Amino acid sequence: MSLAPDWVKQLKPAEPQGSDILALERGRSSLQADKMALYLFGEEKLRRRRDVENILKNDPVFDKKNNYFDGRVDKFKTALARAKRMRQLAVKYNWDDMDVEIARKLISEPDPYGLHSSMFLITLRDQTTEEQKRLFLDKAEAYIYIGAYAQTELGHGSNVRGLETRATWNPDRKTFTMHSPTLTASKWWIGSLGRTANHAVVMAQLYIGGKNYGPHAFMVQIRDLETHEPLPGRHVGDIGPKFGYNNMDNGFLLFDNVEIPHVNMLARFARVDKETNQYVKPPSSALTYGTMTWVRANIVLDAGATLARGTTISLRYCAVRRQFQDKDAKEGADESPVLDYTMVQYRLFSCLASAFAMHFSGQAMMSLYAQKQEWVNKNSNIKGKPDVGKLSSTERGPAPEEVNAGADILADLHATSCGLKALASITAGEGLEVCRRACGGHGYSSFSGLGTYYADYLPTLTWEGDSYMITQQVARYLLKMVRQVVKGEKPNNDATEIIAAYLAKADLKTGKAPPPPDFDIIGNDADLVKAYGWRAAQMAVEAWRRRDVEHVAWNALLIDFWRLSTAFSQYIVVKNYHEALQSTAQDRKLDSTSIEVLRDLFRLYAFYNIENFGLEFLASSAATPKQVSYTRRKGVPEAMARIRPHAVKLADSWAFSDWQLDSSLGRADGNVYEDMFYRASTSGNNPLNYLTLDPRADSKVLVKVDRTPKRAQAKL
Amino acid sequence: MSLAPDWVKQLKPAEPQGSDILALERGRSSLQADKMALYLFGEEKLRRRRDVENILKNDPVFDKKNNYFDGRVDKFKTALARAKRMRQLAVKYNWDDMDVEIARKLISEPDPYGLHSSMFLITLRDQTTEEQKRLFLDKAEAYIYIGAYAQTELGHGSNVRGLETRATWNPDRKTFTMHSPTLTASKWWIGSLGRTANHAVVMAQLYIGGKNYGPHAFMVQIRDLETHEPLPGRHVGDIGPKFGYNNMDNGFLLFDNVEIPHVNMLARFARVDKETNQYVKPPSSALTYGTMTWVRANIVLDAGATLARGTTISLRYCAVRRQFQDKDAKEGADESPVLDYTMVQYRLFSCLASAFAMHFSGQAMMSLYAQKQEWVNKNSNIKGKPDVGKLSSTERGPAPEEVNAGADILADLHATSCGLKALASITAGEGLEVCRRACGGHGYSSFSGLGTYYADYLPTLTWEGDSYMITQQVARYLLKMVRQVVKGEKPNNDATEIIAAYLAKADLKTGKAPPPPDFDIIGNDADLVKAYGWRAAQMAVEAWRRRDVEHVAWNALLIDFWRLSTAFSQYIVVKNYHEALQSTAQDRKLDSTSIEVLRDLFRLYAFYNIENFGLEFLASSAATPKQVSYTRRKGVPEAMARIRPHAVKLADSWAFSDWQLDSSLGRADGNVYEDMFYRASTSGNNPLNYLTLDPRADSKVLVKVDRTPKRAQAKL
Repeated sequence: MSLAPDWVKQLKPAEPQGSDILALERGRSSLQADKMALYLFGEEKLRRRRDVENILKNDPVFDKKNNYFDGRVDKFKTALARAKRMRQLAVKYNWDDMDVEIARKLISEPDPYGLHSSMFLITLRDQTTEEQKRLFLDKAEAYIYIGAYAQTELGHGSNVRGLETRATWNPDRKTFTMHSPTLTASKWWIGSLGRTANHAVVMAQLYIGGKNYGPHAFMVQIRDLETHEPLPGRHVGDIGPKFGYNNMDNGFLLFDNVEIPHVNMLARFARVDKETNQYVKPPSSALTYGTMTWVRANIVLDAGATLARGTTISLRYCAVRRQFQDKDAKEGADESPVLDYTMVQYRLFSCLASAFAMHFSGQAMMSLYAQKQEWVNKNSNIKGKPDVGKLSSTERGPAPEEVNAGADILADLHATSCGLKALASITAGEGLEVCRRACGGHGYSSFSGLGTYYADYLPTLTWEGDSYMITQQVARYLLKMVRQVVKGEKPNNDATEIIAAYLAKADLKTGKAPPPPDFDIIGNDADLVKAYGWRAAQMAVEAWRRRDVEHVAWNALLIDFWRLSTAFSQYIVVKNYHEALQSTAQDRKLDSTSIEVLRDLFRLYAFYNIENFGLEFLASSAATPKQVSYTRRKGVPEAMARIRPHAVKLADSWAFSDWQLDSSLGRADGNVYEDMFYRASTSGNNPLNYLTLDPRADSKVLVKVDRTPKRAQAKL
Repeated sequence: MSLAPDWVKQLKPAEPQGSDILALERGRSSLQADKMALYLFGEEKLRRRRDVENILKNDPVFDKKNNYFDGRVDKFKTALARAKRMRQLAVKYNWDDMDVEIARKLISEPDPYGLHSSMFLITLRDQTTEEQKRLFLDKAEAYIYIGAYAQTELGHGSNVRGLETRATWNPDRKTFTMHSPTLTASKWWIGSLGRTANHAVVMAQLYIGGKNYGPHAFMVQIRDLETHEPLPGRHVGDIGPKFGYNNMDNGFLLFDNVEIPHVNMLARFARVDKETNQYVKPPSSALTYGTMTWVRANIVLDAGATLARGTTISLRYCAVRRQFQDKDAKEGADESPVLDYTMVQYRLFSCLASAFAMHFSGQAMMSLYAQKQEWVNKNSNIKGKPDVGKLSSTERGPAPEEVNAGADILADLHATSCGLKALASITAGEGLEVCRRACGGHGYSSFSGLGTYYADYLPTLTWEGDSYMITQQVARYLLKMVRQVVKGEKPNNDATEIIAAYLAKADLKTGKAPPPPDFDIIGNDADLVKAYGWRAAQMAVEAWRRRDVEHVAWNALLIDFWRLSTAFSQYIVVKNYHEALQSTAQDRKLDSTSIEVLRDLFRLYAFYNIENFGLEFLASSAATPKQVSYTRRKGVPEAMARIRPHAVKLADSWAFSDWQLDSSLGRADGNVYEDMFYRASTSGNNPLNYLTLDPRADSKVLVKVDRTPKRAQAKL
């Protein structure tokens, strides 16, 4: 047994105590963390968070104490119990989508209903006829049909056109035959399909009379509603353990000539005419790309919160943790807080600055989305789709008369959401690991709360468009913009404005660059933003020159495109952040201290990325060598020094509760060592500590005594 | 049940088959992978690998089929069984240390004897008197005493001097009292201590007559040899789950005034005189730092193999995986292998190049170690210690008369091993994640073989000196070198030679930089190496100027020091690689094709890092803007194009067996999809697939039917 004897229970950490340290840290800063939280999230969201958390915390199903100890099978059973209870609570308390989303974030793990409540329901709402809504959607919304969205295959990911699953129209029987002709046609990675779903929306190549009409969506029942066993002709199961996301049953699915009725092809846009056996085209092919664009916009919004979570944990811990004396201090001085070391600040404060930067860009996209959604609802006959509307934060302001409707809007929105998705997901994913490492050895403990969260986050870099591959979409969009400007067309958004400004001064015939723009990036924030735009414009023009003038192969330009996409997206992010600062100051949404700290973080973000992408700023003359050197020598260090006193308060500003973080290191009260020790030893939750081994090499006995208490099964 | 029906079993992947693809890939290259393997590892090591693997593969204890499925408790039991069996096999087959190390690498997971066979035995061999060897070492070598090395504490990591555990000398009873005065004094992270060890070498502050003599090593029995229960006054257990390394029982340990005899203080160097009750100093305090230096050298050696493992898996899979057509190809063209995309090559080939680079630097360090060890054995009265000798690859050649013995050697060796440890571990750790991401969605599956391996590798970035923090050691060393040169002392190694060359042309009084050195980095490999040296020298001098002339605070220089350490270590790596190429060509150790490919990888490594650290090359004039631009525009892409045909053969060259990799994606035969499918579905190993759920939200039942077969317990 490892429950501690009395002499252990009486021990306290060495002085100073974590709680005193954090109190001192908070005392040093006049920042008002609660006001900042209000500013970031608004009163309603904060209130709902508190309300939902109170309900979850008091329900034993959501007790997190075994989360870090459970193996996959227990983890999954618990996750299913939680998913069910969450649905029950949603019904009981009449939670809307926002409440449910808040609950998910608080629970902080994937769940087996995850794909049902997102992609499955969205697709059914979007792509069904009225008849289909009655047949499928009603039962899905009542959680009788539990669904999955089956697109990816074992051999096919991003390239949807390469899917192998077939849906063949049978003109005589007026049915479709779903079939998997090969092993690589097996659906794969399908969330909630492995064990949970009884239905799936299946993307399959539609064949009519031997001709392929491309991928379309079909509703297919997978399992019996009573026994939950797979129906004939379906081979379905879980694809096995993953790096993270093990609370989710990502599944595989193969069809052996499964026949489904005509009504099971989701027919709001395209359909097969039952009488003529002819294919009827959708009004615009662009419409089918919508859902993914909407999902990507959400990823950007989440990236800020993700990074904020990582930095909250690591900032608090690094304030508490002491290690080594300052080398210039007198002999016998106390050890310094790790957070005082500039090498730690450089890593953590840049993540913190990115968290705010992503937050403001996410907000900008969402408000833009709302504006455009309104406009689309007024001007389009396709209402209520979450995927129509302009998310591009390169176009702002409520001037609908300037906006091109239809495919143009979607193309714009598609490109910008791709670029920001790539930048935001990579920044957040890599940032979490930066935070983990900054916590030293203890960062590696599950109790840090960083590892599991990081592992669960990583798919975001790959799904909804691999974050390297989709940068081509941004390049394609910017190439098009350059071509427009070259043709003398009027710029219709910020992206082309900055490109136009660049081109106006460049000599395209000779390829001669424009004269250096002489931005005051040190003294003038607006110029700092312009420098980012200038760099992106130069790279866009250079890409255009290589592609259109030199006719370089597309494949040979992919690395350039990736860099261009990063540069353009960083411009958007810096621009959004700057605009948020301006409107905050103008409308006095915050006190002056808070605004100053936010501005320090803005400058840190901008300077940090200038020094890390310095070659590009130099090559485009967006910054001079002296300015780039300034960012490294002065800009970044000075911003860090100004941020340091507010670090813990800034962490507090994101308003993560201890229950949500589930982290020894990130405790708001600073009692990190007591918590680590409790979880490992005195709580009795660590199953390994119930085993007494026989360690001798020549003994066949492994476990001499097993005192493991019987573990209660997950239940509702 | 998910065992597949016949119609599934008959399915094959879509054409082309993975096996045909890899055969074609191999056919395209004239590289001889087996010759390359021979060159990299030597015949003996390859033969031993085969012999050891044959033994392991045929022993059911080492069957890997449940590795990715087991939760921590099962994982740990299995690991204990394997550790025991490995010890039994070592005795049976008379394996030496190299065989055991080979077996560990093949099994590829941490084990509960890990710290016994490394740190515990090494410390006992190194730091004990003859009497202590008889008392402790003999039993430890017979695996009767199973030990751990207990240094790190809950509140104290890198700063050993900050440890809180006390060993107080009792002059009357001639004993030491081991005591943990606080909770933060608890030993923490101690490998093999959690459940396995019955003894530990404990680092504790030695107190005699109220005076603290600093940390010393004490042998303490922790558990009863028969019952294996903790002895009185010890509170010991496992610290809980971690991001990886869960086969290992990292432990905690607290003492409540535990008394141990005089003979239990390891007394080869320092000791307490029993008669006078006086402390007797060790001959040189530097000697106690030795073990860590030796451990760091090993980390560098391993980093190459680690990256090679990641790239082997991802190169093979990316050759098999097809996605999208080339954008410039005709309509209807086949999908391209992912490996043809330059964006993928950029990420994977740079990792492959780093793998070779780290391998050659590891080899250089080891051969240097052997040379210096020989010299030390001749010239020192302290024989057989693994920590004495000069690992610094900045000093080469068998000229012992130039070498300073004692503390100087250790300081040199210490600094270089720190810099290379930091660079190598970060390169390998981050490289593994690059490899994983390049595998797209399937990289996230445990069956990729990348995730677990990455998670198990990550502690390397933190332990044995946090890879950010220890870069200060390199800076300290280089600052000293600059000071020597400034004083006009003769350079005694390559580091100072390049600094001296730089200083000779600079004007220290005015701080004026020397004229640009005009290196031909594009046409001349030796100049390429010099450019790396020049950049490091300029940064060292700049650091010296800021510290010694401008008196900037040490803490304000940490980011500069980290950059300086990276620059210096990259110089060492490029230099070692270049020397390996030269000696390989000179001694005709390989055919000309192989040497050419190795040179392409060398240039890729060098150019890739120039473009990524371009600002530093520009700031030091080690390269001109035109040259830096060349690396980005031509150098890297041309090297990639030359490497591409040999990519799969280069992966083969590292001679990883399928059994070792345990990866669906990395299969040598290219049957990646069959293997993924088998593991998830038809093997019957995936426990989730035995559960039939009730997914309906309003049902209290979670599992309707559980068909899980009774799992055989791990046994010997």
